[in-house]
Amino acid sequence: VARRLRDVGEHGWIARLLGTVPRGPRVVVGPGDDAAAIRPPRGALLLTTDTLVEGSHFQAGWEPPARLGRRAFRINLSDVAAMGGRPLAALVAIEAPPDLPVAILDGLMRGVIADARTHGVDVVGGNLAAAPRLAVTLTLVGVASRRPVTRTGARPGDDVWVTGTVGGGGAAVRALLAGHRTRRPPVPVRLEASRLLAPVAHAMIDVSDGLMQDLGHICRASGVAAAVDAGRVPVAAACRRALGVEAVPFAVTAGEDYELLLTASPRQRARLERIAPRLGCALSRIGRIEAGRPAVRLLDAGGRVLPLRRAGFDHFRRR
Amino acid sequence: VARRLRDVGEHGWIARLLGTVPRGPRVVVGPGDDAAAIRPPRGALLLTTDTLVEGSHFQAGWEPPARLGRRAFRINLSDVAAMGGRPLAALVAIEAPPDLPVAILDGLMRGVIADARTHGVDVVGGNLAAAPRLAVTLTLVGVASRRPVTRTGARPGDDVWVTGTVGGGGAAVRALLAGHRTRRPPVPVRLEASRLLAPVAHAMIDVSDGLMQDLGHICRASGVAAAVDAGRVPVAAACRRALGVEAVPFAVTAGEDYELLLTASPRQRARLERIAPRLGCALSRIGRIEAGRPAVRLLDAGGRVLPLRRAGFDHFRRR
Repeated sequence: VARRLRDVGEHGWIARLLGTVPRGPRVVVGPGDDAAAIRPPRGALLLTTDTLVEGSHFQAGWEPPARLGRRAFRINLSDVAAMGGRPLAALVAIEAPPDLPVAILDGLMRGVIADARTHGVDVVGGNLAAAPRLAVTLTLVGVASRRPVTRTGARPGDDVWVTGTVGGGGAAVRALLAGHRTRRPPVPVRLEASRLLAPVAHAMIDVSDGLMQDLGHICRASGVAAAVDAGRVPVAAACRRALGVEAVPFAVTAGEDYELLLTASPRQRARLERIAPRLGCALSRIGRIEAGRPAVRLLDAGGRVLPLRRAGFDHFRRR
Repeated sequence: VARRLRDVGEHGWIARLLGTVPRGPRVVVGPGDDAAAIRPPRGALLLTTDTLVEGSHFQAGWEPPARLGRRAFRINLSDVAAMGGRPLAALVAIEAPPDLPVAILDGLMRGVIADARTHGVDVVGGNLAAAPRLAVTLTLVGVASRRPVTRTGARPGDDVWVTGTVGGGGAAVRALLAGHRTRRPPVPVRLEASRLLAPVAHAMIDVSDGLMQDLGHICRASGVAAAVDAGRVPVAAACRRALGVEAVPFAVTAGEDYELLLTASPRQRARLERIAPRLGCALSRIGRIEAGRPAVRLLDAGGRVLPLRRAGFDHFRRR
C-alpha cells in the first residue's frame, strides 16, 4: 500500500528529505533550520518566485512528479535568465493534501534537486503545508554580475529577437486538455543564451504568457510599440502539425514557451548572428520596436495586421 | 457589487498593486519585472519561506485580510529573527480563487506592505496564481552580520530561555475552532530581542510548532536532551484563563507563539538579566540542556515528569 503524507507526517517527511539534499560550498546553513544562509554574491541579487497549482498549471497524471518538480524549478530559472543572471539558491514551499502518496512528493523533490544540481543551484530550504490540492511555490535567488536586463530598455528602431521556438508547450497543453496522451516539452534552459545575449539586449523578458502579451509587457515598461512579422515567428514543429494555418496566431498567444524575448539595436545584427551558433538554440529576428503608444501588432507578409482572438494568458480570465 | 478577481484579471490586479509598493534605496529592480534585484548585503544572506493556507492556517473571517497579510509577513520575520538576522526583502506568492473579491487581496497586500515598511523591508516581487483556496507563500531575504544562530549549538549545562509568553495564540485558535468570537494575538516581532540575544545564544529557534517540539528540534540538531520546569513557563494570561490547570501542558504544545527559544551558558545569566529590560518583552529561564539522547521532559516542582497528550503541531497528523 502507498504510504501517505498523513502516515509519515510533516516532520518525518522533511527529516528524511534532508539527507538527500546536496550542499554546495556557498551554503553556510542548509535546509532544516529556521532559515538558510548563503554567502552573499558580488553583483545585484536577483529574487523571483513562481507557483504551480494542481488544476491550474497541471493536472494529476500529466507528467511524472520528477518532471513537475523540474518544471517548478525551470520556470523560475527562466525568470533569472530573463534578467541576464545566474541562479544560486532555491527554496521550495509545497502544499499537499494529507492523503497524497509520499512517493509523489519524493519524486517531485528528486526532480527539483537533480535539476538544481545540474545548474549549480543549492536547494537551501522550504516549507510543507496541508492544503486541498498539490501546489509548489519555488523561490530562486540569483545574481547578475552586470546591470540586470529589465523590460524597460526597448527603444524605437530596435530589432525584436526570440530564442528557440514558440507554441510547442501551448500545443501540448491543448492536446492534453482535449484528452490526448502526450507530454509537455520540458521548459528550456536558456542560461547560456542569456549570458551571451544580455550584454547586447536593451530589454529582455521570458515568454510565459504568450509572445504577444510578453512583448506587450516590454512595450508598456519601455513606452514603445512593436510589430511582429508572422512569417518570421519560429513556430514549434508540433504546433505547426497540430494547428495548421492557425499555428502562428496560436503560438504567439499560447504561453508556456519560456524562451527569451529581447530587443537590440539593428547595429548589433552581425554580432548577434555571430553569437547565434553558441546559444544552444535558434535565434530569430521576428520584428521591430516603433515609437508610439504601447501596443503589439502581428503583421502578415503584406504588412496587414492579423487579428488575434485573445491577447495571451491570464490566470483569472480563461479562454 | 464586489469586484472579483475574474473581473480585473491577474495582470490588471498586479498593475494596480505596483503603484502602492514603496521602494527602498537597496532596490535595484522592484516588482513588475521577471525578477527583482537588490544590492547584496555584507554578511550571510538568510533565506526563508512559509505558507498560510485557508482551511489549514486560517479560516475565512477569522481576521481582516490586512491582519492575515501581516501574519504571513511576521511568521517569516520570526524565522529571520531566530537566526539572529535582520530582514531585507520579501516576495509574496498568492494563490486565489477567481471569485475572490479583489478587496480581500488588496487588504492582504496592504497588511504585508505596511508591516514590511515598518520593519525596513522592501516588497520586491511575487506571483498571483489561480487555486481553489486562498494561500499566501511569503519568502523573506535577510542578512546575518555575524555567524547565524542555528539549532545545532546547544551544550549540556546550558540554560533554556524563552521570550514573551506562550499559549496565547494556541488558546485563541482553540476558541475560534470552538465557534467563539475572538482574535488571534498578532505574531510578535522579536527583531530587537534577537539582536541583543544572538551574541549570547548557543542555539536559537522560534516557537511555531509548540515549545516542547521546537526545543526537541534544538535537541536533535545539537545531540542533547532538555528539561523544562513547568512552573517557570511564561503562560499567556488568556491561555491561563481559558485552560486553568491544563494551561501549561497546553501552552507548551499548542504552537503559534513565534517567541524566541534559546540556550546559553549559565555564566551568561547576569548579562541576560541586564539585557532583559531592553528586549521589549519578557525573558524567562525555563529549563536546562542535559547530556543524553534527544528528548525533552516537562517537570513539575517536585522534579516529576508531567505527561503530555501530544508532542506538538504537525500539519498532517491532526489532534
